[in-house]
Amino acid sequence: MKVKQLLQQMTLKEKVGQLNQRLYGWEVYTKKEGEITLTKTFKEEVDRWGSLGFIYGVFRADPWSGKNQETGLSTEEARYVSHLIQEYLQEHTRLKIPVFLSEECPHGHQGLESLTTAANISVGASWNPALYQEVQEIVARDIREKGAHLGLISTLDIARDPRWGRTEECFSEDPFLASQFTVAALKGLQGGAGQRIDEAHVLAVLKHFAGQGSAMGGHNSGPVNIGPRELREIHLPPMVAGIANGAQMTMAAYNDVDGQLCHGNPDLLNRLLREELGFQGAVMADGCALDRLVEITEDKVEAAIWAVTSGVDISLWDDVYPYLEEAVVSGRLSEEVIDTAVLRVLLLKEKMGLFSNPTPLVQSASLEEKRERSVQLAKESLVLLKNQEHRLPLKKNETIAVIGPNGDLLYNQLGDYTPYKCEEQCVTVLKGIQDYGHEHGMTVVSAPGSMITRELEGGIEEAVALAKTVDTVVLVLGGSSARDFSTTFDANGAALSGSNEMTSGENIDLADLALPAAQVKLVKALHDVKKTLIGVFIQGRPHILTAVEPYLDAILIGGYPGEYGGEAIASILFEESPSGKLAMSLPRSNGQLPVYYNYRDVAFKEAYGDDSGKPLYSFGTGLSYTSFSLTDLALVVPTKAGLHKGESLKISGTIKNTGDYRGAEVIQVYLKSHPKKLVTRVKELKGFCKIWLDPKETKGIELNLNLAELSELAENMNTQMMTDITVMVEAHDFSWQERIRIND
Amino acid sequence: MKVKQLLQQMTLKEKVGQLNQRLYGWEVYTKKEGEITLTKTFKEEVDRWGSLGFIYGVFRADPWSGKNQETGLSTEEARYVSHLIQEYLQEHTRLKIPVFLSEECPHGHQGLESLTTAANISVGASWNPALYQEVQEIVARDIREKGAHLGLISTLDIARDPRWGRTEECFSEDPFLASQFTVAALKGLQGGAGQRIDEAHVLAVLKHFAGQGSAMGGHNSGPVNIGPRELREIHLPPMVAGIANGAQMTMAAYNDVDGQLCHGNPDLLNRLLREELGFQGAVMADGCALDRLVEITEDKVEAAIWAVTSGVDISLWDDVYPYLEEAVVSGRLSEEVIDTAVLRVLLLKEKMGLFSNPTPLVQSASLEEKRERSVQLAKESLVLLKNQEHRLPLKKNETIAVIGPNGDLLYNQLGDYTPYKCEEQCVTVLKGIQDYGHEHGMTVVSAPGSMITRELEGGIEEAVALAKTVDTVVLVLGGSSARDFSTTFDANGAALSGSNEMTSGENIDLADLALPAAQVKLVKALHDVKKTLIGVFIQGRPHILTAVEPYLDAILIGGYPGEYGGEAIASILFEESPSGKLAMSLPRSNGQLPVYYNYRDVAFKEAYGDDSGKPLYSFGTGLSYTSFSLTDLALVVPTKAGLHKGESLKISGTIKNTGDYRGAEVIQVYLKSHPKKLVTRVKELKGFCKIWLDPKETKGIELNLNLAELSELAENMNTQMMTDITVMVEAHDFSWQERIRIND
Repeated sequence: MKVKQLLQQMTLKEKVGQLNQRLYGWEVYTKKEGEITLTKTFKEEVDRWGSLGFIYGVFRADPWSGKNQETGLSTEEARYVSHLIQEYLQEHTRLKIPVFLSEECPHGHQGLESLTTAANISVGASWNPALYQEVQEIVARDIREKGAHLGLISTLDIARDPRWGRTEECFSEDPFLASQFTVAALKGLQGGAGQRIDEAHVLAVLKHFAGQGSAMGGHNSGPVNIGPRELREIHLPPMVAGIANGAQMTMAAYNDVDGQLCHGNPDLLNRLLREELGFQGAVMADGCALDRLVEITEDKVEAAIWAVTSGVDISLWDDVYPYLEEAVVSGRLSEEVIDTAVLRVLLLKEKMGLFSNPTPLVQSASLEEKRERSVQLAKESLVLLKNQEHRLPLKKNETIAVIGPNGDLLYNQLGDYTPYKCEEQCVTVLKGIQDYGHEHGMTVVSAPGSMITRELEGGIEEAVALAKTVDTVVLVLGGSSARDFSTTFDANGAALSGSNEMTSGENIDLADLALPAAQVKLVKALHDVKKTLIGVFIQGRPHILTAVEPYLDAILIGGYPGEYGGEAIASILFEESPSGKLAMSLPRSNGQLPVYYNYRDVAFKEAYGDDSGKPLYSFGTGLSYTSFSLTDLALVVPTKAGLHKGESLKISGTIKNTGDYRGAEVIQVYLKSHPKKLVTRVKELKGFCKIWLDPKETKGIELNLNLAELSELAENMNTQMMTDITVMVEAHDFSWQERIRIND
Repeated sequence: MKVKQLLQQMTLKEKVGQLNQRLYGWEVYTKKEGEITLTKTFKEEVDRWGSLGFIYGVFRADPWSGKNQETGLSTEEARYVSHLIQEYLQEHTRLKIPVFLSEECPHGHQGLESLTTAANISVGASWNPALYQEVQEIVARDIREKGAHLGLISTLDIARDPRWGRTEECFSEDPFLASQFTVAALKGLQGGAGQRIDEAHVLAVLKHFAGQGSAMGGHNSGPVNIGPRELREIHLPPMVAGIANGAQMTMAAYNDVDGQLCHGNPDLLNRLLREELGFQGAVMADGCALDRLVEITEDKVEAAIWAVTSGVDISLWDDVYPYLEEAVVSGRLSEEVIDTAVLRVLLLKEKMGLFSNPTPLVQSASLEEKRERSVQLAKESLVLLKNQEHRLPLKKNETIAVIGPNGDLLYNQLGDYTPYKCEEQCVTVLKGIQDYGHEHGMTVVSAPGSMITRELEGGIEEAVALAKTVDTVVLVLGGSSARDFSTTFDANGAALSGSNEMTSGENIDLADLALPAAQVKLVKALHDVKKTLIGVFIQGRPHILTAVEPYLDAILIGGYPGEYGGEAIASILFEESPSGKLAMSLPRSNGQLPVYYNYRDVAFKEAYGDDSGKPLYSFGTGLSYTSFSLTDLALVVPTKAGLHKGESLKISGTIKNTGDYRGAEVIQVYLKSHPKKLVTRVKELKGFCKIWLDPKETKGIELNLNLAELSELAENMNTQMMTDITVMVEAHDFSWQERIRIND
């Protein structure tokens, strides 16, 4: 194999160069008066190692990188810089190994001119992985067009505590739902799961492995105290699904699991991930995470040895992996360990075609296609939780006031890890409603009313006065992950202090999930005006809506719907039926956390002495403008042998749209297994399908659950087949169940 | 050995009878017009098995048992019933095996005429295990005098989530502190750790094994998701210390740990507890806990087999262990497993001297001794958290109003699992202050002001009017675990619905830990009167005091101080310096839970975006009326070999009382270990001493940390010696640290 020969020719220094990803990519170039040149920083790094494995974030343009519309790189310029970099390596290194350019793409590439799609917190609520896959195809081309190869994306994190500021990067509280979207992200970004990734696709780096969503108190990268079963049942399924669908790279998580840091845990990365789960790719460190090992080893060489022998192949910004060289030279580390990691990197470069053409010509999707697909995804992610007296959809002759802090602030609807945008091309909620109103001759007025966390002087008075002049108030509330130039950053780019208005995002964990008091006050003041009040919530986490729920006629949860989010929201407010379902439960109070639906089914009193134990709105909830009937539910139960041979548990039925709008229902299949010596969970999502129906239309449903879905961990932690199972089929206002037995 | 011979003579049925503890003890007798007789229920149970292992709670007298001062048993009557029971067994069973009578004694025996001491939540704050041991000696005699043998007591539960209603049964959030009190309870109840337990002592049944304090959301017996390291570092130390000090019985916990119910977990009960930790005694099931296994096995025989092979020896009320007989008869269970359990029971009966005299004549302590020791314990448990402008101690010429819902309700200061009391012999806070006032010619007036959770009509007006007439208001606030006849109960005696005023206790978990609004309103109204406001908190859990803290001149945390609690509180308010230190951190808000001090030291941002990550008052905090200086701190560091030989790490210093009151300081020694591949905790308490000093008095300090305290779990979960350690010595306003190394 070519790369093995290459490896044999490499010096130790060159090998170590392949494992280091030290540069902040945006420091690789300067752009002055239109002229772009490579920096001394870049050249010195090449010179230091004679070989570069990875450069992170060359095209990143955001408050942390300090690159903006002027100083950052357009798509054309990015391509040019990519060429410059690869050419430089061809000309100035002995072995001419091309470098991997890695970029963030949590919800579209975090660079200029790229599509910013709905964030994961929205995506999960769409329950439409196929659509998400299409959007990720677009994202892949955005990145590849610029000449980069790797897309870093959070798909593995499970939202178990909404206080966590990175909840917005999670698809769901549920491992199965998150797994389906992980697979969709992979397929979209990487294309087919073949041995080579084609020129229109990127290598996905799945973040973060593992367990980060269960940190103590919702603290970002805080201690994780969970046991191996909780880890495997809740946090590992997306990775398992990812491996089965071609995952080649993952990023280790900052946290520990029960005392073992993920970056220094050979049992997690080598034994479990590689040997047991069969992962054959490379593990990247999280930003500066290896420096945190030094706090424990109190020695950089030892930290490097610890990480690399634990299974971490590639560094990120840390001052640890440079010491791999010393580790080998001093005889403390076998060069074979280095070789294994380098080989993984080189094989991936080969798989991506870097040795033949590191910067192939790729055309990104058209603006129309980008807009259409991302609007569709945003529309399908919107979750309607309340619609009193069918006030939605709005009528085309209503006069509308768009009020609230999230009505017209573009960055508030995009989430953390967002690049600078060309604002006039994007659609805020206000703009979406204005565009729609303009088209239909409607009056649309607006006022902010309040800020996210603070009152706005005269804001309520202005909003109330405005509300009195219209039929309906669309109140756009929630939170924000928008960074601005007042944000200070840690060495790893996490916010150290947000602006006052930043209530979500990395390191912006909250102790109080209630909608901020300034917004509650605004809601109450507007309620007193006695006009229709529609609450639209743009937010990176499930806020507690207990205080405002009674005052709103309708509640639409928007998540972070992306750069065209306003168009999607306007469409749902006026015309199209919402079809999203909550992928995370909305708590009733801070004190009842956690509120995920899939806890273990031990006998305990769910209710608190002073409050319900149930969330305000639970996982899987979501209303529609139309109604459905589900009939003829039936099961075909396979034998054990049949399941092993690939047969499935078939759930069939008939669904009819019994209302007046085209709409979609999500049929959710939950299992409750009854093994004889193990506490299983109350219920676990193991299948779902989203079905669109015209009014009066009828369709057959068929869901198939295979061996993977019918597997569980036995007492001894080995995988076993479920045998006694309660199968539950649920949809809005519908619940059906049957107990089955898988026989020999 | 005699019991082995006995075992050989037993039929299967008789053996199974020894393992069953099915009766509600209070149904064993009737008391009518002064005549006490054994019931048919009792006789039928004897008849059923021909042998009885245990009877639970014959002397219990509380709302659940329905036995009160009239229908329950006085000490004399209890003794009589004990005799009746044992005589009946002598006369009506073939092998004449005496029965173990087991009784609850969470804070004194839960029967009539027994001393009700401070609850564990108070006891932990005393940091004085030696004193607690003396009090437990008294408790043991109370129980033994009545003819019972086993004292069930919570000592193993660690308070990790104050939402849990059984937090009041925990000594601390800290495993080391809880371990010291576990040992004290054991030594007090059981006497010396010899092979026989003498006639003045009882066999302690330590509750609950294991991990119950880490249940999801603070739900009683809810799912426990923690891993093996968290379990072992936080939840097992009290059991480890207990085993080293003669623990012979433990009760399994309702909860699961990471999917395995404690009652059905051979790895926990057989491998870890018995093989690894060396426990040689018997394991009792919790009430009806085995019935919960049936929900999983869906078969009672299978549940019985599962539990007994897992290591559960004795049942409690369940309808499962009767099926042990069928399990053996049907060939599904080896009789040897039964024999092992029965032998454990018989050996304990022998150890307790049951075969020679099951009801020896024992004299309980005098009322004077009971009162003096329990008042001292209550006094030492009071924690002063705020004392603005040294408003405490109060002056002897002040006029005082005692206001608040906990001022004069006896049962509110006693906690859950409390028997009916002779109220006139007890001392509420009001009575304590009145008694003191009467002695010193002071005016003391009182009003309730509010109820615990509800406003009292006209209550605030009355309180305010009263406050205007005095110098100082002692505001007695907090919560209550008082059950009354409106409480409904589960089959295991846990409250199903509390009275409206029950805010703590088994199954009364809270979602909101804030002091109830009615009390906050009362505080604010009284603050407006501008008199000195002293807040005394009688409560079973750390309530959030954030809303009232600014309005109070002084804050004294009382926990549940026991039947003479008012005397202790009056003494501290007027004369003696408080000496308690928080054994559980007081949170600032519900949303920052958990707030224990000893979390694992990974790099994370402690502060939330909207709140501090730190508790309002942290573990170890507590003020005094006097002041101390600590000087000459020095360490003597042993070698590894020395440690193995029994030498210790010596911490010495000098403490001086630099103030004007006699008082005590608690010197706290924390360690932070620095192994090279493991995340250890921020700090861990590993030693402490409480030192009383007269004004201007000086004493030498010496603390010794032995191998046990210098041991930790390695990556592979084996015990290893710490080598690199930061030693921290802390006291009020004092902090000293030194990094040491244990060399070969």
